[in-house]
Amino acid sequence: MRAIVHEGKNGFEGLRMKEMEVREPAAGEVRIRLKVAGLNHRDLLILDRHQPTDPAVIVGSDGAGCIDAIGPGVQGIHIGDEVIVNPGLGWSKKSDVPPASFGILGFPSHGTFAEMVVVPVENVLPKPSALTWEEAGVLSLAALTAYRALFTRANVQPGMKVLIPGIGGGAALFLLPFAKAAGATVYVTSRSKEKSRRALELGADKALDSDGDWGAQLDGEKVDVVIESIGAATFQKSLDRLRTGGTIVTFGASAGDVVQLNVRDFFYGHHNLLGTTMGSAEEHREMLAFIERHRIRPVVDRIYGLGEYLDAFRRMDQAEQFGKIGFRIDG
Amino acid sequence: MRAIVHEGKNGFEGLRMKEMEVREPAAGEVRIRLKVAGLNHRDLLILDRHQPTDPAVIVGSDGAGCIDAIGPGVQGIHIGDEVIVNPGLGWSKKSDVPPASFGILGFPSHGTFAEMVVVPVENVLPKPSALTWEEAGVLSLAALTAYRALFTRANVQPGMKVLIPGIGGGAALFLLPFAKAAGATVYVTSRSKEKSRRALELGADKALDSDGDWGAQLDGEKVDVVIESIGAATFQKSLDRLRTGGTIVTFGASAGDVVQLNVRDFFYGHHNLLGTTMGSAEEHREMLAFIERHRIRPVVDRIYGLGEYLDAFRRMDQAEQFGKIGFRIDG
Repeated sequence: MRAIVHEGKNGFEGLRMKEMEVREPAAGEVRIRLKVAGLNHRDLLILDRHQPTDPAVIVGSDGAGCIDAIGPGVQGIHIGDEVIVNPGLGWSKKSDVPPASFGILGFPSHGTFAEMVVVPVENVLPKPSALTWEEAGVLSLAALTAYRALFTRANVQPGMKVLIPGIGGGAALFLLPFAKAAGATVYVTSRSKEKSRRALELGADKALDSDGDWGAQLDGEKVDVVIESIGAATFQKSLDRLRTGGTIVTFGASAGDVVQLNVRDFFYGHHNLLGTTMGSAEEHREMLAFIERHRIRPVVDRIYGLGEYLDAFRRMDQAEQFGKIGFRIDG
Repeated sequence: MRAIVHEGKNGFEGLRMKEMEVREPAAGEVRIRLKVAGLNHRDLLILDRHQPTDPAVIVGSDGAGCIDAIGPGVQGIHIGDEVIVNPGLGWSKKSDVPPASFGILGFPSHGTFAEMVVVPVENVLPKPSALTWEEAGVLSLAALTAYRALFTRANVQPGMKVLIPGIGGGAALFLLPFAKAAGATVYVTSRSKEKSRRALELGADKALDSDGDWGAQLDGEKVDVVIESIGAATFQKSLDRLRTGGTIVTFGASAGDVVQLNVRDFFYGHHNLLGTTMGSAEEHREMLAFIERHRIRPVVDRIYGLGEYLDAFRRMDQAEQFGKIGFRIDG
C-alpha cells in the first residue's frame, strides 16, 4: 500500500511516499481502509525525534475510514463499518496522567498517512454522522487535546472569560467553539487580520492583535482562563491578563519552549499553571458526544492528495493554516 | 505604649521603638494586651514597601495575649481571655482567592510588635491550651500559609511523597510536621548540616544537601508534591524531582523571584504549578484543630525582648534561624 513514511534523514528530507506492507490484524485489532487522514503539529515534531537509523515509520495520528479486516476475538464490529480513530493508545480512563505505557499512533507505531492502518478495536468509534469524511478524518487529536485542556483541566464553566492566544491552529479552532458552546466569553489573538476576521465570524467575542498591547485592547479586563499553546512568544502576555486565582493551561510551545516566570507575582496572584497533552479514551468519547450535542464542525483548512505531502507539511510548518489540514487517501 | 514601628527611611534604618497611642476598640473590635509576637519574612518585605513619607506603622502580624478591652456590640468574649490572633483581615471562607478587601495585620494597618493591638473580634481565637505563650505567639501566619499550601492547594494525602526545599524557615518547619501528620513521606533540603540534622530529628525521612544533586541523593526517586518557598535558587531542581502529574505549590521566593520554565517539559509532564499566600479564617480554624489533634508544637528558634528588634530582624534577614523568631512583650 502507499504510505507517507519518515526514514533515513531528519526533517522534511526524510519524508517520502513508499510502498509498505499491509498487515493482518492480530487478536483484538481491526484494519481500517482510510478515506481521510489529518495532519498535526506532532507529525512535524516526529521528523526530528524519529532517528534516521530507525526503520521507516508511517507518520500520522488522525484518520477515518471503513473497517476492512477484523482480528480474532473481536466482537460487535463489521466489515464496512464507518469509523473514526482515537490515536491515543493505552489510556482508557480520565486520570491525572496517562499510564506509563501510553503512546500515540504515528510514532513509534505506524500511523494513518497510508491506505490502511491496524489499531486495537477500542481505538475505533462510529464516525459522527453529521460530519463529512474530511471533517471526521482530521478531528481527533486536536479536538481531544482541546477538550481535556478546557474541561478536565481548566474546568471552564458558563460565564467564564477564556483567552486563546494564536487562533488558527487545529487545537485553537476547537477551543473556540468548545468554549463558546460551554457558555464562556472567548477572546482570541492573532498576528493575522484575516485569521482574526474569521475567528470573529466563528463566534469569538473579541480578536486581539497578538503583537499589540493585550491589556489596552481589552480595556484592562482580566480573564479566568488562558489556554496557551504558543509558548515563549505569548506566555508573559497571557500571564498578565490572568485574574487573581485564574488558570493557565499549557499544551503547546510552537513559538518557544523556555519562558521566564516571576514566581512572586504568580503566588500573590494565586495563579494556577496546568500542563496537559492529549487525553484518555473516556475524554475522546465525551468530546465526540459534545460535538454532536452542540453541532460543532471542525474547521477544515485544506485537503491535499497523499502525494502532496510536502506542501501540506510546509503549510503547517509556516503556520499558514486556519483550521485542520488533511489528506484525501482514497481519491 | 511601646511599639516597633517603621517610618522615615526604607529598610532597617526606618525601624525604631516608639511611644504610640493606645486606641479604644470600635464596634466589633477587641484590644489585646500582647504577651508574645512573632516575626515573619513579610515583616522584612514591609521595610521596603512601606514608604518613608507615610505615617509610622506598627510592624508585626503574629501575636498572642489577653483581652484587655472590648468594643461595643461584641458578645461572647471577656476581659482576660487568653487568645491567639489570626492576622488575615477580611477573608472568612475557604476560597480560590481572597476577597479584594483582604489585608494582613502589620501593614497597612498597625500590627503586633507593641504592647497592645486592636483587631476585629473574629480575628481572635482561644489560645491552644497545649501551647506555651511563646509557641502560640509565633504560630499563625506561617502555620496558616503552610496548611493552605499543603492541604487546600496540594491536597496532600497519606502515602504521598512531599519535598520541602529549604528547611529552617518558619513556614517550612510547619510543612514538615503537618505533612508527616497527614501520613506523607517527607524529604527536606538545606545547605546547613546542622539544620538537616535537626529536620531528621523532627521526623523528616531524608535531608538533602541543597547544593548537591537532588536526583542522585534520592536515587532518582520522584515526588508527588513540592512545596516551594525559596524561588530561583531551587525552582529548577524542584521541577526536576516532580513525578508526571505532580504538583508544585509556591508561596515564597526568598532567594530570587524570576525563574526559567521549560513549558514543553512542563506540559509533557502534566505538571501543576499552584500559587498561594496566607489563607482564610476557615483554614486558620482548621489549622488550629489540626495541630491540637496531632499535638504539633511550633519550633521556636529564639525569643527576643522587644528592644532587641534589630538583632531579631537581622537574624531572619541572614536566614540563620531554625524555626520561628519571636518577641516577649510583657517581660
